[in-house]
Formats: sequence, C-alpha cells, structure tokens
Amino acid sequence: MGSALAAAFLDRGHPTTVWNRSPEKAKALAERGAHVAATPEEAVAAAELVIACVLDYDALHTVVDPVAARLAGRTLVNATSGSPEQAREFEGWADAHDVAYLDGAVMTTPPGVGNPDMMFLYSGSEQAFETYRGALEVLGDPLYLGADPGVASLYDAALLGVMWSTFTGWLHGTALVGADGVAATDFTELANRWLGGAVHSFLTRYAGQVDEGRYPGDDATVDVQIATIDHLIHAAADRGVDNALPELLKATMERTRDAGHGGDSYASVIEVMRGSSRV
Amino acid sequence: MGSALAAAFLDRGHPTTVWNRSPEKAKALAERGAHVAATPEEAVAAAELVIACVLDYDALHTVVDPVAARLAGRTLVNATSGSPEQAREFEGWADAHDVAYLDGAVMTTPPGVGNPDMMFLYSGSEQAFETYRGALEVLGDPLYLGADPGVASLYDAALLGVMWSTFTGWLHGTALVGADGVAATDFTELANRWLGGAVHSFLTRYAGQVDEGRYPGDDATVDVQIATIDHLIHAAADRGVDNALPELLKATMERTRDAGHGGDSYASVIEVMRGSSRV
Ligand SMILES: NC(=O)c1ccc[n+]([C@@H]2O[C@H](COP(=O)([O-])OP(=O)(O)OC[C@H]3O[C@@H](n4cnc5c(N)ncnc54)[C@H](OP(=O)(O)O)[C@@H]3O)[C@@H](O)[C@H]2O)c1
Ligand SMILES: NC(=O)c1ccc[n+]([C@@H]2O[C@H](COP(=O)([O-])OP(=O)(O)OC[C@H]3O[C@@H](n4cnc5c(N)ncnc54)[C@H](OP(=O)(O)O)[C@@H]3O)[C@@H](O)[C@H]2O)c1
Repeated sequence: MGSALAAAFLDRGHPTTVWNRSPEKAKALAERGAHVAATPEEAVAAAELVIACVLDYDALHTVVDPVAARLAGRTLVNATSGSPEQAREFEGWADAHDVAYLDGAVMTTPPGVGNPDMMFLYSGSEQAFETYRGALEVLGDPLYLGADPGVASLYDAALLGVMWSTFTGWLHGTALVGADGVAATDFTELANRWLGGAVHSFLTRYAGQVDEGRYPGDDATVDVQIATIDHLIHAAADRGVDNALPELLKATMERTRDAGHGGDSYASVIEVMRGSSRV
Repeated sequence: MGSALAAAFLDRGHPTTVWNRSPEKAKALAERGAHVAATPEEAVAAAELVIACVLDYDALHTVVDPVAARLAGRTLVNATSGSPEQAREFEGWADAHDVAYLDGAVMTTPPGVGNPDMMFLYSGSEQAFETYRGALEVLGDPLYLGADPGVASLYDAALLGVMWSTFTGWLHGTALVGADGVAATDFTELANRWLGGAVHSFLTRYAGQVDEGRYPGDDATVDVQIATIDHLIHAAADRGVDNALPELLKATMERTRDAGHGGDSYASVIEVMRGSSRV
C-alpha cells in the first residue's frame, strides 16, 4: 500500500521521498522518480507532509519514535490501519511532539489508489486536512470526518462490515440461483442494480428512522420479512446451500419482533443490536 | 400490491378490469376509472392479458381453478410470491388449460410500482413476455430471465437475501459508529457510496471468478480479511454492540481458509456455502 501511495504522487509529478525498512522495495519507485531516503530521519526531513503506512501501530512507533524531534512542526498523515483507540492514543503522542496529526483510512486496495472515485477517510486535525487537501486528492477522494482522530478507523471497520455482510449474502444468493444453473455474472448484474436502487433507497430512508428513533413500518414490516425469509431458507435448503447466514438473519428479526417491533420497519433491528454503552 | 398494479395501468390510460375477493377494496380503483368485475370469470373474460396478485398459491388456485376454461387462449401473469417449485407446478396447470404463463416477481413495494427504475422479474413463456412487454413496462422495468418459470422467484429470494444481509451489516455498522456519536444519516451516505462503488466493483470481479471456479487473491485474500475482521469485532465488543453477525462472517471465512482458500479471494467462500446438489 505504501508503494501505491508514493506512486500516485510520482505519477502526478509531486516531488516524493520514500523510505521502507527493506530498501529493495523502493527500487521500482526510484525508477519512477522517487528520492529514496536512507533513514526515516532523512525521509521526514524532506517534506512538510509526511505519510506513514506500515503494518500496524507497533511498526509505526518503531519507525517514528526515534524521529519525533524531526517531525515537530510537520504534518503526519497515518494510513496504517488500527483501532479508534490506537488512533486517539497516537494523536496524544503527536500532540506531545508538536506534530499535526491526521488519521487516514484507505477504502480501496492498492490498484484503486489514484482513482478519484475511491474514498480516503480522514479524521483529526482539520487544519492539516484543509492545508493538504489538494495533495490528498492525488490519492483519491479525501473525506474529512471530524476532529476525533478515531472516527476514520471506526468508519473503516463499519464499512468493511457492510462489505463482508453484502459479500456473504450475495454469495449465498449466487449459490442458490447457481444450483438451478444461473451464472454468477447474470445474477450479479441484477444484484448490483438492486443494491444501487431499491436497497440504496431503503438505507437512506431507514437511516433517517434510526436518527429519529422511530421506525414506521409503512412499506414492509419485520413480521412480513420474517414470513418472507422462510421462502429463501426453504429454497436454499432444498438445494443443499448452507443456511447459517439466513438463519441468523431470521433469528435477529425474531428477536426484534419479540422486543415489540413486529409492526415496525427493518431499521428497528438496531434496537436489539445496539449496546448499552450507547452515547 | 394488486391495487398498485391496477392503478399503474389506470394512470397510463389502459382500460383495466379489476376483481378482488373483498369488493370494497376495488372502490378507489373504480374512482380512477377501473371497471369492477363482479366475478373472477367476468374479470378474466375482459382482456387477453390477465394479471393475478393474491396472498399465495392456495389463494391463486381458489380464484383461477373455477375459471380455467375462460383463461384458455389468454396470457396469465402471476405476481403472487411463492417458491420456484410452486411456479413450475403452476405452469403445468396453465399448460394443461392452454393458458400462456409468465411468472413474475415484483422487486419493490406498492409505492414503487409504476417507477421505471424498479425491477419486475419474469420467467416462463418468452412469447407472452414479448407480446406484453409494452404493457408490463407500465409497472416498472420488465426483465425476462428465461423459460424456466421458477427462475423469477429464485432470483426474488436470492435478491431479498442480499438485501437482508446488507441491511443487517449496515445496522451493525450504524450501531458501531453511533456508539461514538456518528449520525446514521452521515454514515449511510458513505455506506451507500461504498456499496455503489468499491463493493459493486468487487462483486462484478468476483462473479467472474465464481463462474470460472478460480479465485485469485490478487488484491485481498481470505487470510487478510480474517485478520481485519477482528478490528471490527473488537471495536463493536468494546461498545456493547451485538457481534453475532461478524462472528458468523469470521467463522465462515475460517471454514473457507480451512478448506484451503486462505490465499484466495473472498469469492472462494462460495465453495463452502454451496450444496452438494449443485448442477
Ligand atoms: N493492502 C490493502 O488493500 C490495504 C487497504 C487498506 C489499508 N491497508 C493498510 O495499510 C497498511 C499496510 O498494508 P500493506 O497491504 O501495505 O501490508 P504489507 O504489504 O504487509 O506492508 C507492510 C509494510 O509495513 C512495514 N513494516 C512492518 N513491520 C515493520 C517494522 N517493525 N518496522 C518498519 N516497517 C515495518 C513493511 O516493511 P518491509 O517491506 O520491510 O516488510 C511494509 O512496508 C496496513 O495497516 C493495512 O491494514 C491496506
Ligand atoms: N406488498 C409488497 O411490498 C409486495 C412486494 C412484492 C411481492 N408481493 C406479493 O404480492 C402478493 C400480495 O401481497 P400484498 O402485499 O398485496 O398482500 P395483502 O395486502 O395481504 O393482499 C392479499 C390479497 O390476496 C387476497 N386473498 C387472500 N386469500 C384469498 C383467497 N383465498 N381468495 C381470494 N383472494 C384472496 C386478498 O383478498 P382480500 O382483500 O379479500 O383479503 C388480497 O387481495 C403476495 O404474494 C406478496 O408476497 C408483495
């Protein structure tokens, strides 16, 4: 990922200095015009904007702790993945060393870096974000989520959860129709249209309901969904498709109904999912 | 739903005859210009194209069995939900009575009927579909899925499964970010963009992998996803959010890894989900 970030800057003609623990990995970047620093200190000294992307926060500290004094007065954008708590702790470290800190979450794989449609989430110093927004646009679409540096990684985890849920439901459906000879590509064309159309509209409407704490079941109630999911479970069982996911979804809907939301919309499921530590 | 279908035809100026077991429900349609038939027989006799939408297949047989002779030579489009097996059996009934049969699945709620973006899935008689495509466009976007009348309801179940999975993953994410004070509407704007962008691209790529039966893990492997989902599970557990869904997703990924797909893409999850009855 670090290579992809550096390559995006080089492709747009930005003078870029790179450092990696294993120097051979910088060779391809050097051929594209990168200045290769011999030490983290040299790399940090080369620019006002420093972007770090290593395995985890332990690796991050290994690299930046010895050069904290050099980082003072500069901006550090951290594209290393971690927990919200790690991002918040790290901001404490950055504050203590007079470093402006922006936590980043890269919502794409390396080949997507440089594509302006890809989301790059940032939280932390708003001033740093505003100052370097133009540079960050080189990587993708920079979205600022607020001053709490933990928010970018919280969104990251939550969006990946949406992705895995969607992937798994889609593979269940693909296995179901596939059992009757439907090609995955045929089903997926409609699944994508469904997600971008009706499902998109439902999520938008239901988000408003969640924020209001009221879940009118005008169109489709939890009770109706419970009745309907049996069609899916039976059809899949008949075809030997593993039903662990729809069984869990049904059980979740039933818990929601038992909590008194049978006549409410699906958005009311959040009431049984939410923790007691809700703010 | 039957009222919404009839209203869409009336709104576009199509002469429309309606019948419902409880006649008072037809009153609003009569005011919009519908001819109200006194019996199913009268309704069936009124047009070449007959659309049925009742609770289930038992209700359907109750209504159409006594008027089978009247239906002969006409086309019956059945928008009643059921299993693929029920649709196939019903086609046998239609064949035996010389009725052209098209099974339909309405992929929207009543307020979406008449919106050309909404998907209406059909399978069964291709000739019936081609003959009445123009009329069916009044209801939404008609998509013909093939001669097997069971396919429309199979897609229906599979697409609803994708919807419930996405809903539930989205509500988990919404509860997670909500615990730190993020509004559902703010998170959902990005979740929708994520689904329509990166997730859309992944599904398209992975569908090709499923059809080929090869799952190259170029970008993100099952092993990497397993490591990453722990971030989500920990962050949610810290906030008291119910983790049944991500725990199931993780267990599914681990089964996939244990089946030898750790270095493959997420699409390889279908290998552990698929039944033995695969065609
Ligand atoms: N790949 C993706 O699709 C993706 C997407 C979003 C976010 N991310 C995040 O980006 C970060 C990097 O991921 P990646 O895919 O680039 O992983 P990777 O290919 O394994 O690269 C890890 C990098 O961290 C360095 N590193 C590890 N331990 C170190 C240490 N103790 N001291 C100094 N450097 C150390 C490695 O240096 P060596 O080369 O010397 O081993 C390497 O440059 C991770 O936090 C990941 O979660 C990745
Ligand atoms: N609503 C949706 O969002 C939606 C979406 C897609 C598909 N569908 C499908 O559309 C079909 C109808 O759903 P709906 O929402 O319109 O349900 P509904 O409001 O409960 O209507 C059921 C209809 O079936 C009739 N009916 C039931 N039993 C009957 C019988 N034995 N003889 C004659 N008529 C009978 C009812 O007549 P009475 O008025 O006399 O009770 C009523 O017209 C279902 O198969 C449903 O799965 C609905």
